[in-house]
Amino acid sequence: MENREESGLVTESKIEGRNAVLEAFRSGRSVDKLYVLDRCQDGPVRTIVREAKKTDAIINFVTKERLDQLSETGHHQGIIALAAAYRYATVEEILERAREKDEPPFILLLDNIEDPHNLGAIIRTANLAGAHGVIVPKRRAAGLTATVARTSAGAIHYTPVAKVTNLVSVMEQLKKEGLWFVCADMDGTSMYQLNLKGPIGLVIGNEGEGVSRLVKEHCDFVASIPMKGDIDSLNASVAAGVLAYEIVRQRG
Amino acid sequence: MENREESGLVTESKIEGRNAVLEAFRSGRSVDKLYVLDRCQDGPVRTIVREAKKTDAIINFVTKERLDQLSETGHHQGIIALAAAYRYATVEEILERAREKDEPPFILLLDNIEDPHNLGAIIRTANLAGAHGVIVPKRRAAGLTATVARTSAGAIHYTPVAKVTNLVSVMEQLKKEGLWFVCADMDGTSMYQLNLKGPIGLVIGNEGEGVSRLVKEHCDFVASIPMKGDIDSLNASVAAGVLAYEIVRQRG
Repeated sequence: MENREESGLVTESKIEGRNAVLEAFRSGRSVDKLYVLDRCQDGPVRTIVREAKKTDAIINFVTKERLDQLSETGHHQGIIALAAAYRYATVEEILERAREKDEPPFILLLDNIEDPHNLGAIIRTANLAGAHGVIVPKRRAAGLTATVARTSAGAIHYTPVAKVTNLVSVMEQLKKEGLWFVCADMDGTSMYQLNLKGPIGLVIGNEGEGVSRLVKEHCDFVASIPMKGDIDSLNASVAAGVLAYEIVRQRG
Repeated sequence: MENREESGLVTESKIEGRNAVLEAFRSGRSVDKLYVLDRCQDGPVRTIVREAKKTDAIINFVTKERLDQLSETGHHQGIIALAAAYRYATVEEILERAREKDEPPFILLLDNIEDPHNLGAIIRTANLAGAHGVIVPKRRAAGLTATVARTSAGAIHYTPVAKVTNLVSVMEQLKKEGLWFVCADMDGTSMYQLNLKGPIGLVIGNEGEGVSRLVKEHCDFVASIPMKGDIDSLNASVAAGVLAYEIVRQRG
């Protein structure tokens, strides 16, 4: 699956791997075709086939060679589904989710996360930390590919991801909705000392360069994760997890 | 770089990517040869070449094809070093580090982490959270490969990793040294309600199956990370980060 237009049009995409395909069925995603490794009889695969039979999906039992050929990620685990592609949400839809749940908005903003594994892991974290959505910029960022779907472990079906032209102007717009913005950087205040309750946007910087200057200038707080070691920084998805859960703890 | 014997012998290994190679030089690792993409003049690469010139490393400027051929990870970023291989530490060396720092031991035990990216990210987290070392089992676990070194962002040079035959018997041995063990599982007590101070071993389970039954039975506490979403679990390295930093917070 490749990046697509954010026109709201739904196109075909591949979902690979057991967790991702099972979640696609469970979340009611429209799967058109399912490719299953022939004679594969283990529990997870049988569960998926059972789920698939409840839907209109066409099930094909194929050889490993055929799956390898179809696979875009190289990690199909014996199962590939063709499904409607992930649609990007709007920022308004993300705010609407918070209103529906009667919770102060909690949004993750990714300032140029480039690694699809990190993007997938962050969407997974956003889902479990109870964030209402994820905002990514149009340029210089990973899109919602099959690898992202797989590493999100299905979270991509539940947690809306909005793609925006300009992160800073969206931050300005969200400030009018009452959101505060916090980003992570080494020169910040310890995250344990900041008040991270209320409507919040958590900004995660690029893997190599951190948060860009302009985005940082538009943040209300700069939080630092205590660093007791010899190297510079945590993996971006780990840092996102640590910060998101500090917000969970303070809200809890 | 492949798994090696834990005899303490040092063999040749490849280090790939800018951060990993730079950290290798900065941490005083013995680099024998450096392969650099010919005519590559950007900042990070020039810094590495400058560092390399301070050492006995032989510097070779080569084509992209040659680098691709040498690369084991497929992510060399224009730079590959051949260096002494990572030596596994002993559990005693990890305890000794805690004593040297006059801190209660804080150790991460990985119950069959199979993905080298997760292993690398966890070693990186262990370093920054101030853990004294990481213990991995001999079987069914990722070894200290070039991918692990790269994703650890150099932490592998600082944080000792011990490889043991039997995780449970090491836990029993460490209990005699006063350590308490905590593992993460969904049916546990909220991590915010547990007392995670003092000498502690944090057990992280396998990506798909979680913590194995026998290891879980030998844990003193089972901690749960609050899950507010629709899917089952966090990425293993994110979960390790969230738990490790809850320990940092409580110790702080």
